[in-house]
Amino acid sequence: MRAQKFLFVPGPTNVPHGVLSAIDGPMEDHRSPELPQLTLPLFEDLKKVFKTATGQVFVFPGSGTGGWEAALQNTLSPGDKVLAARFGQFSHLWIDMCQRLGLEVITIDVEWGEGAPPERYQEILASDRDHEIKAVLVCHNETATGVTSDVAAVRAAMDAENHPAMLYVDAVSSIGSIDFRMEEWGVDLAVAGSQKGLMLPAGLAIVAASPKALAARKSAGLRRCFFDFEDMIAANRTGYFPYTPSVPLLRGLRAAIDALLEEGLDNVHARHHRLAEGVRRAVKNGWGLEILAKAPKWESDTVTAVVVPTDFDASTVINVAYHKYNLSLGAGLSKVAGKVFRIGHLGSLNELMLCGAICGAEMAMRDVGIRVQPGSGVAAATEYWRTTPGLWKVWDEAARVA
Amino acid sequence: MRAQKFLFVPGPTNVPHGVLSAIDGPMEDHRSPELPQLTLPLFEDLKKVFKTATGQVFVFPGSGTGGWEAALQNTLSPGDKVLAARFGQFSHLWIDMCQRLGLEVITIDVEWGEGAPPERYQEILASDRDHEIKAVLVCHNETATGVTSDVAAVRAAMDAENHPAMLYVDAVSSIGSIDFRMEEWGVDLAVAGSQKGLMLPAGLAIVAASPKALAARKSAGLRRCFFDFEDMIAANRTGYFPYTPSVPLLRGLRAAIDALLEEGLDNVHARHHRLAEGVRRAVKNGWGLEILAKAPKWESDTVTAVVVPTDFDASTVINVAYHKYNLSLGAGLSKVAGKVFRIGHLGSLNELMLCGAICGAEMAMRDVGIRVQPGSGVAAATEYWRTTPGLWKVWDEAARVA
Amino acid sequence: MRAQKFLFVPGPTNVPHGVLSAIDGPMEDHRSPELPQLTLPLFEDLKKVFKTATGQVFVFPGSGTGGWEAALQNTLSPGDKVLAARFGQFSHLWIDMCQRLGLEVITIDVEWGEGAPPERYQEILASDRDHEIKAVLVCHNETATGVTSDVAAVRAAMDAENHPAMLYVDAVSSIGSIDFRMEEWGVDLAVAGSQKGLMLPAGLAIVAASPKALAARKSAGLRRCFFDFEDMIAANRTGYFPYTPSVPLLRGLRAAIDALLEEGLDNVHARHHRLAEGVRRAVKNGWGLEILAKAPKWESDTVTAVVVPTDFDASTVINVAYHKYNLSLGAGLSKVAGKVFRIGHLGSLNELMLCGAICGAEMAMRDVGIRVQPGSGVAAATEYWRTTPGLWKVWDEAARVA
Amino acid sequence: MRAQKFLFVPGPTNVPHGVLSAIDGPMEDHRSPELPQLTLPLFEDLKKVFKTATGQVFVFPGSGTGGWEAALQNTLSPGDKVLAARFGQFSHLWIDMCQRLGLEVITIDVEWGEGAPPERYQEILASDRDHEIKAVLVCHNETATGVTSDVAAVRAAMDAENHPAMLYVDAVSSIGSIDFRMEEWGVDLAVAGSQKGLMLPAGLAIVAASPKALAARKSAGLRRCFFDFEDMIAANRTGYFPYTPSVPLLRGLRAAIDALLEEGLDNVHARHHRLAEGVRRAVKNGWGLEILAKAPKWESDTVTAVVVPTDFDASTVINVAYHKYNLSLGAGLSKVAGKVFRIGHLGSLNELMLCGAICGAEMAMRDVGIRVQPGSGVAAATEYWRTTPGLWKVWDEAARVA
Repeated sequence: MRAQKFLFVPGPTNVPHGVLSAIDGPMEDHRSPELPQLTLPLFEDLKKVFKTATGQVFVFPGSGTGGWEAALQNTLSPGDKVLAARFGQFSHLWIDMCQRLGLEVITIDVEWGEGAPPERYQEILASDRDHEIKAVLVCHNETATGVTSDVAAVRAAMDAENHPAMLYVDAVSSIGSIDFRMEEWGVDLAVAGSQKGLMLPAGLAIVAASPKALAARKSAGLRRCFFDFEDMIAANRTGYFPYTPSVPLLRGLRAAIDALLEEGLDNVHARHHRLAEGVRRAVKNGWGLEILAKAPKWESDTVTAVVVPTDFDASTVINVAYHKYNLSLGAGLSKVAGKVFRIGHLGSLNELMLCGAICGAEMAMRDVGIRVQPGSGVAAATEYWRTTPGLWKVWDEAARVA
Repeated sequence: MRAQKFLFVPGPTNVPHGVLSAIDGPMEDHRSPELPQLTLPLFEDLKKVFKTATGQVFVFPGSGTGGWEAALQNTLSPGDKVLAARFGQFSHLWIDMCQRLGLEVITIDVEWGEGAPPERYQEILASDRDHEIKAVLVCHNETATGVTSDVAAVRAAMDAENHPAMLYVDAVSSIGSIDFRMEEWGVDLAVAGSQKGLMLPAGLAIVAASPKALAARKSAGLRRCFFDFEDMIAANRTGYFPYTPSVPLLRGLRAAIDALLEEGLDNVHARHHRLAEGVRRAVKNGWGLEILAKAPKWESDTVTAVVVPTDFDASTVINVAYHKYNLSLGAGLSKVAGKVFRIGHLGSLNELMLCGAICGAEMAMRDVGIRVQPGSGVAAATEYWRTTPGLWKVWDEAARVA
Repeated sequence: MRAQKFLFVPGPTNVPHGVLSAIDGPMEDHRSPELPQLTLPLFEDLKKVFKTATGQVFVFPGSGTGGWEAALQNTLSPGDKVLAARFGQFSHLWIDMCQRLGLEVITIDVEWGEGAPPERYQEILASDRDHEIKAVLVCHNETATGVTSDVAAVRAAMDAENHPAMLYVDAVSSIGSIDFRMEEWGVDLAVAGSQKGLMLPAGLAIVAASPKALAARKSAGLRRCFFDFEDMIAANRTGYFPYTPSVPLLRGLRAAIDALLEEGLDNVHARHHRLAEGVRRAVKNGWGLEILAKAPKWESDTVTAVVVPTDFDASTVINVAYHKYNLSLGAGLSKVAGKVFRIGHLGSLNELMLCGAICGAEMAMRDVGIRVQPGSGVAAATEYWRTTPGLWKVWDEAARVA
Repeated sequence: MRAQKFLFVPGPTNVPHGVLSAIDGPMEDHRSPELPQLTLPLFEDLKKVFKTATGQVFVFPGSGTGGWEAALQNTLSPGDKVLAARFGQFSHLWIDMCQRLGLEVITIDVEWGEGAPPERYQEILASDRDHEIKAVLVCHNETATGVTSDVAAVRAAMDAENHPAMLYVDAVSSIGSIDFRMEEWGVDLAVAGSQKGLMLPAGLAIVAASPKALAARKSAGLRRCFFDFEDMIAANRTGYFPYTPSVPLLRGLRAAIDALLEEGLDNVHARHHRLAEGVRRAVKNGWGLEILAKAPKWESDTVTAVVVPTDFDASTVINVAYHKYNLSLGAGLSKVAGKVFRIGHLGSLNELMLCGAICGAEMAMRDVGIRVQPGSGVAAATEYWRTTPGLWKVWDEAARVA
């Protein structure tokens, strides 16, 4: 029997029992006449989660990385110019992918801890008189640094310059947790994965495309087959897929989306914000430490990167937390390796689970010599949670009525 | 989807995933030729858990209450005298059962918060010149008050008087958590349930009988059939049962006992003690409150009853914890209703889960106006856990080797 | 990994995935404020399954055997006279239990293969001028022989003599499969288990009591505690239990009863009849063998006992089926050991599963030398199933609408 | 509750309970220090399943289609010539993918029902003096027609011409079911999926590459990122992945491969052959129908395409089987749509399950008017199974020893 870990990495997240149950069970024929009863409404409800009325959402076997590739391959041609900001490991990797697929990337390098800078996007777009830039990329929530960018502001920058490029957003660690408005923000391609706010195991790349993005597939010259929208569009029309999908994950997705829509997306986002704010108070007010996000406007509601004092190595904290306290924390990646540890706070989570994570991180820090006060983390977090209106009243009422 | 609760009642306890997996699955024929491969070694290993070499362990469909009844019915006759101490709801209920089954009970009433008094047992046994007392009952761990009794001392009292009565022990909330030594302590009948330290769902009454107890069935006059040892002995001999057993629970029991024996019973007990001691420090040193157990020697390593200040009602704390923080605490029962809430700390549990429970109880107490310091509970508990040798090194080594 | 067996014993039966899912999952506090939301409607719906409006249904940890004991203990006194027919192993065991509990049984011995004889019941009741007989026992479906008795006829016999005894029915292998009408037939105590038509794992004894039976508990002198209706009545009133119930099994029971009521009890019974009739045709018309039930009126819709030719031992057929074809058949018990093998056809089952079982039994018979024609069993069964109106149209419509 | 179907499509196949259990459970951090304990031995054992000592096996999120793409992208450049035979829907689709990725395909069209013709491969390779053909593609088992090709013979044809092209094999519906010898046959790239002989849910593309294929990645000009071997090689070296893998599926893969290796690959293949031969006898000898495979050498041990009489539409058979008998059969695709229905017989399957499928197909055929004799299918199949040495003795011994 494996010892269970408290899972506080920013994905995969805890899968609720009801979702696990929907996934578990006998296999089904993916060409059965009943499959469309599952898939057609699911495709519609996914659009609600992305907040798009006119777009189409594709569900591929894959991961967020596969979703990035699908978004690019279906809409761009070799040599196309792409504008993107780099401010963490995942925004970096998407840029790297663009280059490997033969696109030419104009990279805006930003200090890790800040988000996408709309003003610099605008400058560069303004200077692109011939509209050679075909794609503008933004990482909505940079999982590596705990930074959320202002996608609407980037769209505003594009609109201010009347620039016709398409807007591509990595929403992997925001969809289902942080407000994302595909249609309102004019996002053309949005990429999500199953193992974050959607509370599923890894295994699905979920990509939403605007009508403009869908039209772009006709002229897109990048070679593709597995991730081709064309085959998906043809097969999805009647509720099927061009190759064997994971019906178990589709049933899980159905259950997860039911849960999100039943709670209400606004409530889901508010819950994430409230839990995140408690964690930030634990770090700042309780422990007296800093978080990597440089300003409140960048603070992510799904992951917090905690900066350890400069004479300590964050990886030792993570190591002690894992081996001594059964707590899985996220490591600092690349530029911030050893400097931060990350607490994921997204998906199926509540206050007491976070209390356990805060206490575990606190013990591990004390074990390696970082001088934080015992109990100070949860003292700050719990007083915040206890005294601010939570969603518990709603649940309580629901419990009474049900 | 039901919102999951943090389960900190003193049973049912959390069932580890590996045990749940063993339970889940296709049904099996309980008369199949392969069943004895499961049951015969299981019967043997159950003896290790009770620490008896010469006794026999019976697994009935039922609960601890059913186990009490099986122990009495198979060994006593109407009108037999029984000596028992009452110091909580469960010791009370066993006495009540004796009376309803037609036994005559000599009750030693003890203040709730204390355990079985060996000296008073001895006095009464000494005066029982004609050995009319046939049964001496002790509740090893009184789940209602968080009090553990000294069974060996009761046996010593019996031996000091050379009294031939049999010793009956309710070990429902001690087996698999607190050291219990059937053979060494001369216990004749020991009763356990599946849903406590054995980390299973409710549904099994597990009763161990010494050779003396087994012999007593020949003359025992209480009427019985469902719980008759006789049928069990005959059927168990070849690995079967007199009526349909729950094979899924037997498979779960196999997995749970494998886990206990792999960890080692001594380690299991040490882990429970260490977790319990952290909880007690949270209550006493952190919150400045009292626990119901009147002296350290009575303190239970499986459940702690926290006494709320006299002007508060513990049930409101429990209510807030449940509805606002998704935390299931145990209520005070009968005489101590409203005076205490109980934190179960047995079974599959670790430090961080307990941190969540301590924080939840703390928030709920503050919500109802009890003046405890935020973070004080875990401050006391985590410093104890952090600085005392735990079992994590063992696990760590295991992780490296495996 | 254990090789999975085709399970065709008459209980435990296959548990549908939806029921297994409801059982699996995190443990819950059995004293939580939400439990009554589960239990109170469940108690009501159980009455629908027993077809009683005025009775009360109790759910005990246990098995059918425990249910027999509960029915007797709560309503009778030592020395009470009981009238019962014996025509198989289970009707025999209930009589044996009566004797062991101190009741005086008037036994009507009937050839195995026939059912309860109403005329002989009536004769004996007629001669009982002083109404010393307090209980009349009938085994509705004798699992050991595949014989269904006419309960209504026994009630009619009682009524014809204006006899005030109560009517006790073992409905373990009929409830949820064969029509059972507690109220209409004037049944006072009906006993079921979880692992047959209710499609659950073993572990529950379910007992329904009429108002007359409930009233009898006041004067019933048999000693009891675990199975006492009194405690159940008190605790069930608010949705709780006198001791720890298996909440997982209660959740499973909820799912199973939902499935039964959604299909409709009449449809459930019709489905069982249709499947059973196919099996009987396979045996009689296909294989040219006899079944143990002596007349069509006795034929059971939940289990068929197949009589092997006299020069063969049925246990070798069972053994070959198990080891060579992964098929679990039921053995002949006691008087008919070696003479019959039993095919259970109850619970969650369909035509193709039964085809597998029929083919497996056929191969095993041929392997041991019994001269049945290859394919003859399913030839007879499938032509019946194929050409008689089944319920598939209903399902088909449902599939289209859903 | 969904009515469960008998699943007899040629993938997804039934997932054994032990594999489902390994998949189900709490999520894990894919960067945990313990992951390599799972993955490194798994990578080694996968090589045993492909029978390669010098190659490397990659596990991608995806499906067999993704595996095809990975094999091509990592080893070929735009404009490269590819030689491939087309004799069914899946060999067709792989060719289509080559073309969409910018490769130039020389297609050998073969009648559906035959397999890859080694002599025609050799002719074309012989005429390719300048070795412009870089890739030779073979579909080992054409799932659409139930035809198995002779991969060794294609390799022999290549060797006879000393042709340096690489050999690519679609082993999606053969790996884990039909003997496949990567190293011995000189296969350079072999593609499998999780949902066939590996007895897992869909979701993994598994690709094995020879040293020659691995070397080819250095010069391969096709653009790639998600399926890039390079990233996998770097991350897999220490047991990790370049992006989030499905740890649950990896745990399932571990359990499935354990089962295959414990049974022994030779025994697994023999079991598939024996089950397949029974199905073929049912079709030919029992029903008097033809199968699509034109000669015994082409007959597939994982799927049989049954040709319905010319005046019938196979899709009506499939429809009736599905709706009336809960049986999922495979449809004829493309050229053979309406002409055949397919019975999958791979993965976790035994004789009695196939009896159910044969009976279901037989009933459905009779329902639509096809004149097959009732019971004739299983009569032929069961007599073959019953009288030929099966693996049951092994299992029986195992059962006795275990």
